[in-house]
Amino acid sequence: MQQADVVLLDRLIPPAIVELISPRARRIYVGKQGGCPSISQAAINDHLLDAARRVGCVVRLKGGDPLVFGRAGEEAAFLRARDVAVRIVPGVTAASGVAADMGLSLTHRGVAGGLSFVAGHGRTDADEAVGPSVDTLASSSHPDTLVVYMGLGKLPALRERLLAQGRAPCTPALAVEQGTTARQRAVFSTLEQLPEAVAAARLRSPTLLVVGAVVGSAPGWARRSSQGDLCILEGPQGRGSDEVERAVEELLQGRLDEGGRLAWSRAKEDATDMLFVEHERKLASVA
Amino acid sequence: MQQADVVLLDRLIPPAIVELISPRARRIYVGKQGGCPSISQAAINDHLLDAARRVGCVVRLKGGDPLVFGRAGEEAAFLRARDVAVRIVPGVTAASGVAADMGLSLTHRGVAGGLSFVAGHGRTDADEAVGPSVDTLASSSHPDTLVVYMGLGKLPALRERLLAQGRAPCTPALAVEQGTTARQRAVFSTLEQLPEAVAAARLRSPTLLVVGAVVGSAPGWARRSSQGDLCILEGPQGRGSDEVERAVEELLQGRLDEGGRLAWSRAKEDATDMLFVEHERKLASVA
Repeated sequence: MQQADVVLLDRLIPPAIVELISPRARRIYVGKQGGCPSISQAAINDHLLDAARRVGCVVRLKGGDPLVFGRAGEEAAFLRARDVAVRIVPGVTAASGVAADMGLSLTHRGVAGGLSFVAGHGRTDADEAVGPSVDTLASSSHPDTLVVYMGLGKLPALRERLLAQGRAPCTPALAVEQGTTARQRAVFSTLEQLPEAVAAARLRSPTLLVVGAVVGSAPGWARRSSQGDLCILEGPQGRGSDEVERAVEELLQGRLDEGGRLAWSRAKEDATDMLFVEHERKLASVA
Repeated sequence: MQQADVVLLDRLIPPAIVELISPRARRIYVGKQGGCPSISQAAINDHLLDAARRVGCVVRLKGGDPLVFGRAGEEAAFLRARDVAVRIVPGVTAASGVAADMGLSLTHRGVAGGLSFVAGHGRTDADEAVGPSVDTLASSSHPDTLVVYMGLGKLPALRERLLAQGRAPCTPALAVEQGTTARQRAVFSTLEQLPEAVAAARLRSPTLLVVGAVVGSAPGWARRSSQGDLCILEGPQGRGSDEVERAVEELLQGRLDEGGRLAWSRAKEDATDMLFVEHERKLASVA
């Protein structure tokens, strides 16, 4: 980036990164914003091609990973088809950044068998609306972690879809606005209550959604749970550890009459005892 | 990392990163290798806890993103349950690194509606075998990109599973050994032929697998395809652009008699013309 002659920048590039750009480089701002009039993808492509043909080194600077809902593939294909050499530098995608910040593993062993990313897209940006949508969510199996990029506008539909697929209403869920930035705001909730919780907190785009048992491993979830707003979460069928089940059963019997709800995810029999330790602590906090 | 008193290192940390470690820091190698006797996860946890209780700043250094099949969640939960403060720094997961290096978008708009990561795990490491497996692949819908971490040992089973789900045998597929390192080796093939192609190239662990139409957007796939080993790839049903379909039909009629096979993925009607441009070039190379 220090050798760039021209840099095309997206929205939300952290100032510390912008400062790395050579002072002699020309900077072209091509940020798009959902719900606002903004530059089209075709215009960005033309800017890139024009710059590549005029000068030596052009950098297209995006946030996150450019190959995960980042349009780098389209821009690279456009340029390659016009004989412009392209080199892509990978990045930390928003899901990884948010997971690290929240202290939750996207693929906690014994809890999530896999990890899926889908794009929900904004509520008003017509250009984005043509992309994939929550319709693709039919693919998500229950023990998997689901991360939804740009899904705020379709959150109620997302909930309906996931519930219809049999996901438990009490599946831990998380919405993070402007994740990994100083302006980050996070809402921990359940799948059932997420749209209302997000609305109450007035979260706005860009907001990343994470749905799945792994959200229950975040310290933020434990804090929320300890405030008495726990719920029952079913893990993979028939995979429950007897010990965990017994502990939960005992607690359930003591708590359900009071209207309290308990969160737990079943650890696989052959998993380590770490989840059990977590459960003990979590359950102890409401005992 | 410059302030670390102790650093616990995984296998395959690039030397340039290792050089960033403070010279005064104690380094503990805790790398695991599939098929070889190596340190257990419990022993790593104990090392971490011991170090955290003895000294000020302990760094656990992993390759890729520690929260995607990286066990950071388990290690963090173990430490948090013992009142050790944990901060997680996100990373570039292998899928992103390999995609950038191969020049393919994991979520090419109009081609892949989503992206899923699953772990196949090694063939002999008993410790790894307890994790999720190709059984979770039932979740993958066809227009999605599927990335399999540590799936080399289960590649034939993976193929059977995906074919049984209705994925086209000619779906573009890619296997990359030691991705993003100087020793990287990549095999472009089809889902149907991938196990044999991987065996012929003698790829070994660690190897990442990518299956899906997006692999067809990699320049490496185009090069392979131009050598006459093309195949027909079905895109999302009913989404074909008439123009692309006509072009492909014409080429099919001219080529099928000769036993040749053509690769294409249907662009959505509302997508840009970039894929079509790519197809024109690809198809022109076999005309």
